[in-house]
Amino acid sequence: MKKNILIVPGDGIGQEVTAVGKKVLDKIAEKYGHEFTYDEALIGHAAIEATGNPLPDESLEKMKQSDAVLFGAVGHPKYDNDPSAKVRPEQGLLKMRKELGLYANLRPIKLFDELLGASSIKPEILKGADILFFRELTGDIYFGEKGRKDNGDTAFDIAQYSRFEVERIARKAFEAAMTRGKKLCSVDKANVIETSRLWREVVQQVAKEYPEVTVEHQFVDATAMLLIKDPKRFDVVVTANLFGDILTDEASQIAGSMGMLASASIGDGTGVYEPIHGSAHDITGKGVANPMASVLSAALLLDISFGLKQESEDVINAVDQVLKAGFRTGDIADSSTPKDKILGTDAIGEEILKRL
Amino acid sequence: MKKNILIVPGDGIGQEVTAVGKKVLDKIAEKYGHEFTYDEALIGHAAIEATGNPLPDESLEKMKQSDAVLFGAVGHPKYDNDPSAKVRPEQGLLKMRKELGLYANLRPIKLFDELLGASSIKPEILKGADILFFRELTGDIYFGEKGRKDNGDTAFDIAQYSRFEVERIARKAFEAAMTRGKKLCSVDKANVIETSRLWREVVQQVAKEYPEVTVEHQFVDATAMLLIKDPKRFDVVVTANLFGDILTDEASQIAGSMGMLASASIGDGTGVYEPIHGSAHDITGKGVANPMASVLSAALLLDISFGLKQESEDVINAVDQVLKAGFRTGDIADSSTPKDKILGTDAIGEEILKRL
Ligand SMILES: CC(C)[C@H](C(=O)O)[C@@H](O)C(=O)O
Ligand SMILES: CC(C)[C@H](C(=O)O)[C@@H](O)C(=O)O
Repeated sequence: MKKNILIVPGDGIGQEVTAVGKKVLDKIAEKYGHEFTYDEALIGHAAIEATGNPLPDESLEKMKQSDAVLFGAVGHPKYDNDPSAKVRPEQGLLKMRKELGLYANLRPIKLFDELLGASSIKPEILKGADILFFRELTGDIYFGEKGRKDNGDTAFDIAQYSRFEVERIARKAFEAAMTRGKKLCSVDKANVIETSRLWREVVQQVAKEYPEVTVEHQFVDATAMLLIKDPKRFDVVVTANLFGDILTDEASQIAGSMGMLASASIGDGTGVYEPIHGSAHDITGKGVANPMASVLSAALLLDISFGLKQESEDVINAVDQVLKAGFRTGDIADSSTPKDKILGTDAIGEEILKRL
Repeated sequence: MKKNILIVPGDGIGQEVTAVGKKVLDKIAEKYGHEFTYDEALIGHAAIEATGNPLPDESLEKMKQSDAVLFGAVGHPKYDNDPSAKVRPEQGLLKMRKELGLYANLRPIKLFDELLGASSIKPEILKGADILFFRELTGDIYFGEKGRKDNGDTAFDIAQYSRFEVERIARKAFEAAMTRGKKLCSVDKANVIETSRLWREVVQQVAKEYPEVTVEHQFVDATAMLLIKDPKRFDVVVTANLFGDILTDEASQIAGSMGMLASASIGDGTGVYEPIHGSAHDITGKGVANPMASVLSAALLLDISFGLKQESEDVINAVDQVLKAGFRTGDIADSSTPKDKILGTDAIGEEILKRL
């Protein structure tokens, strides 16, 4: 298979972790006789520094031309502490999602058995938990009109959803539920907000097409509680952009660490694959970032964009083997991990490559 | 002391748990020689059934006239499954908050030592956690304009905050931080939404008045993760209405169960005290609801609205003694709880009363 992959490292540890993800893709190509070619593009703070624009046209064009994008992270503390900054790294990410029509963000939450001890949640609560989140990614309060009134003394943001937008993500979630445990939980705040009432209405309608799927509607506050209390009760979860942002980060604790979680953003064209963690400037350049979320993103890329199931499983297995061999990055180590088994980004990357 | 307390049970288990809360207030009055008089008022589904209005004028008037309100819960599954319902129980709750100017919702999250085992989080992660949430309660997407466009095919909600609204809740949170660990975490999503950028701007300004307080600004997704990963890192947390709704329900897991958590809503006039749990129709009328959140709400009422610190501590101690004696309601029992120590709502209420 001949494919063209665009690497978009972005900011902070994005650079370090996508480098490992790319090596894994390379190794897979070699092992299975595929021909993967690569290009690279700028986004976020890195792009602002180079061009003044968080998503230069050239980057967007390259994304559209490529067969899949392996993405790192965007963000920089400089902007976080300056609420009045007009140009921000995150604008690049949001524009990419919108322009590529990436309306469905898939976030599989599954604990590798070896990491049962690494979570702050009790092992007996976690064991067997396996959740697939569908986060809507191109609507909601992220993309509505926003601004100031009254000489800047009042700020507003408009959350918005159309029937069509809810329908297409709901359908993707139901399709996935059919291939899994046939349970779907739709999360909203329909007791208070109107976008949620439309959301619930549409999910109820789409549900009629999938009579085999058991559907539950939950309020977002209840879900935030139940994810920790009883993660095993969930199978597929579908929710709006903002609620999905919050709930999936929370759910990372079910998987032991944020450093383990990959995501796939799909829609009308090129798919984008990225860790759910951020740019983590506190550890940037130290060589300690956990590259496994990027490696597992590469596995999702192989599976979803290229249909290479076996290759994808091969990658997941290699990660599993490395964990079984006792190797850890700092974020997933616990008090029982021997010091010499705690590896940096590149070293643990090498261990993964060895097992491919 | 002579005081006039309004009991507003609302819906579902609200009735059962406020009955116990009221008995505790009665016992305290008797023990300390206070004179508490009571009245009752309707809200929510109960009020809709009786009057067609989720918050009848008569109820609102009684609230304004009383010295404090002991509140139950509102909600009914009937409306949850009908996204098009025009009149809803929650409207009563929201109108009460707005009309009474209850802009600050305090939610203390602290685990009773005896419940260390009841949480899904590991004891060593929980032990010592003690968080005080300040949730803004009269602004945000809860109270902005909302509606439909395009023949009902598009729904929108407007989130809004003014400088003044952020300032007054921030100041309350900083004042509380000064009496505690002098740490404040302000939670927003300033990398994406404008109301959050105003929020951060104002908190940064108010912070200048409290140089002794260590301030941290966190994105809501990161907070959702860190609350579970490391709850001990938090002292006072201040956030907007919607984020506060989600994060405090999540944080209930730090306290073992939602059934243990009380809240105080304060502002310009009468204070309202209520459990953070909802109406829980699945267990309504079964006599198994945990009344401790209502009892602890009564303790907050005594402390905050009446300045009766000793009386308040007496109530908290009584709850602690009941737990120490091994008594549990179903929600906080675990596999090691003997069957005969698992009590219903009234029976555990009696155990609390005995210890006052
Ligand atoms: C960086 C930020 C804008 C982004 C989001 O909120 O979507 C991130 O948190 C994510 O989840 O991908
Ligand atoms: C019932 C609902 C409207 C309410 C809210 O969202 O504020 C509840 O969840 C709460 O936290 O008091």
